[in-house]
Amino acid sequence: MQGFVPQDDKYEMRVRESFSRQKLMQTIGAALTKVMPGEVEITLEFRDDLTQQHGFIHAGIAATLADTACGYAAYSLMAPDAAVLTVEYKINLLSPATGESLIALGKVTRPGRTITVCSGDLFALKDGDKKLVATMLATMMSIRDREGLVG
Amino acid sequence: MQGFVPQDDKYEMRVRESFSRQKLMQTIGAALTKVMPGEVEITLEFRDDLTQQHGFIHAGIAATLADTACGYAAYSLMAPDAAVLTVEYKINLLSPATGESLIALGKVTRPGRTITVCSGDLFALKDGDKKLVATMLATMMSIRDREGLVG
Amino acid sequence: MQGFVPQDDKYEMRVRESFSRQKLMQTIGAALTKVMPGEVEITLEFRDDLTQQHGFIHAGIAATLADTACGYAAYSLMAPDAAVLTVEYKINLLSPATGESLIALGKVTRPGRTITVCSGDLFALKDGDKKLVATMLATMMSIRDREGLVG
Amino acid sequence: MQGFVPQDDKYEMRVRESFSRQKLMQTIGAALTKVMPGEVEITLEFRDDLTQQHGFIHAGIAATLADTACGYAAYSLMAPDAAVLTVEYKINLLSPATGESLIALGKVTRPGRTITVCSGDLFALKDGDKKLVATMLATMMSIRDREGLVG
Repeated sequence: MQGFVPQDDKYEMRVRESFSRQKLMQTIGAALTKVMPGEVEITLEFRDDLTQQHGFIHAGIAATLADTACGYAAYSLMAPDAAVLTVEYKINLLSPATGESLIALGKVTRPGRTITVCSGDLFALKDGDKKLVATMLATMMSIRDREGLVG
Repeated sequence: MQGFVPQDDKYEMRVRESFSRQKLMQTIGAALTKVMPGEVEITLEFRDDLTQQHGFIHAGIAATLADTACGYAAYSLMAPDAAVLTVEYKINLLSPATGESLIALGKVTRPGRTITVCSGDLFALKDGDKKLVATMLATMMSIRDREGLVG
Repeated sequence: MQGFVPQDDKYEMRVRESFSRQKLMQTIGAALTKVMPGEVEITLEFRDDLTQQHGFIHAGIAATLADTACGYAAYSLMAPDAAVLTVEYKINLLSPATGESLIALGKVTRPGRTITVCSGDLFALKDGDKKLVATMLATMMSIRDREGLVG
Repeated sequence: MQGFVPQDDKYEMRVRESFSRQKLMQTIGAALTKVMPGEVEITLEFRDDLTQQHGFIHAGIAATLADTACGYAAYSLMAPDAAVLTVEYKINLLSPATGESLIALGKVTRPGRTITVCSGDLFALKDGDKKLVATMLATMMSIRDREGLVG
């Protein structure tokens, strides 16, 4: 950690509340396993119904986890009235996502008033080993004063 | 279309067979709606259980569709014994993915023996309008002779 | 062209004036060969002093041209008092950049108040043929009211 | 460093020899300031003729340095008869590249037989401070047996 100071004391509550409204996270069974200023971790147990044609977790799910972890890492440092949107991201898939579970770790590289840049790493846990299987570089945006858009 | 000539007459059958083995596609309800040489389209009806915190289709699902369309666009031009893997992609999210359905169109930009570069566009259909909501640039890889890896 | 309407009648003059202040463009000998609303083209004659170890134009120069074309395509649609900055880009290098000259074509995919997304294509001209050698997807940002930052 | 073991004892000589053939590096005045297995650093003194319209080092030059550092970081781990090519990269520009000099540090994230993924960080040195101004995620490829392509 680079010791980011959140603008809002209640950053963890805001992140957890917003995450709980992401229905996709419930649909795939993802859990928020760490929330710190500028750093968020999401964990997913392996599920056969999330696989691609070779039986690995689909790259899209891997990206979903890393993108969400990056988005909330950025959001944890934003003002209380801001909403976070993903502008874009790029992901490299390094190894098949297999094992018992996946852990996505999103970290803020550089926070900004409008644009926050984050990196995301995705690890697969298998037989006690933790292996880096994907890495992401993402651009998040803080949106304010847009009606109906919170969190 | 740039008039790509497939290496394998049965490219459509191979793409459809591989797609049918992607359990995630069934889980989210995505359908293969077009298979041509170097061009593949996937369609998803809007579903509330795939949304993020603002009620839009989650960016991860948008990316999943575009990535899969790009992967099969590349695969349609590969040799019969090849498997396709996503090396990496980058996606820009342009507008919230809302509406009745999403259409992901993947096209080969440049095919290659090892590396194939594709572009993907994601459209949202709403009230008869078709709007570009995301755009992707992806790198796919042809894998051969890797045991157990087909399609 | 998608028929973008510039906010500022003098968009071409603004683009040309800003380009003329880019000393790197003079250093490498790049010329602005087309300026339209949301579309800008930059041309570079092949020069041996811009090559990498295999004698091709260095990927960094290819990216420089495409990035600059994308930036000015975005800038052509911005308000008169805005400055343009590159947030990020991703480039795929498809073929060696060889030949008599390189042409970078930047086009706006989607303009926005803050964020504008562009695509860039780089072509090599050789013996009368025009070949796509690189493709870019870029995110540009409009900056206003920042002291000393114009163009 | 993650303790990568080079395939070739003479990796440093190969990197330095290849770098010396990059005429662009001489043209812009870039120097190879560190070569370790999987990690390469390139340094550039600020030069006014490499600037963009606001007087900062052009993003294209920043990318050139980071791309080259990543490419040689990958190359340092490749077989003696391999050549390295950039497949693609994505760069986020975090802050204006100003100061006395720029340092690009390229590191291998994951080496592979065909594909090597690298990260690159670009720092600006100014008045004794070292500031991260750009970050890159890059895909490099090892090419063998292609006539005339070495280094």
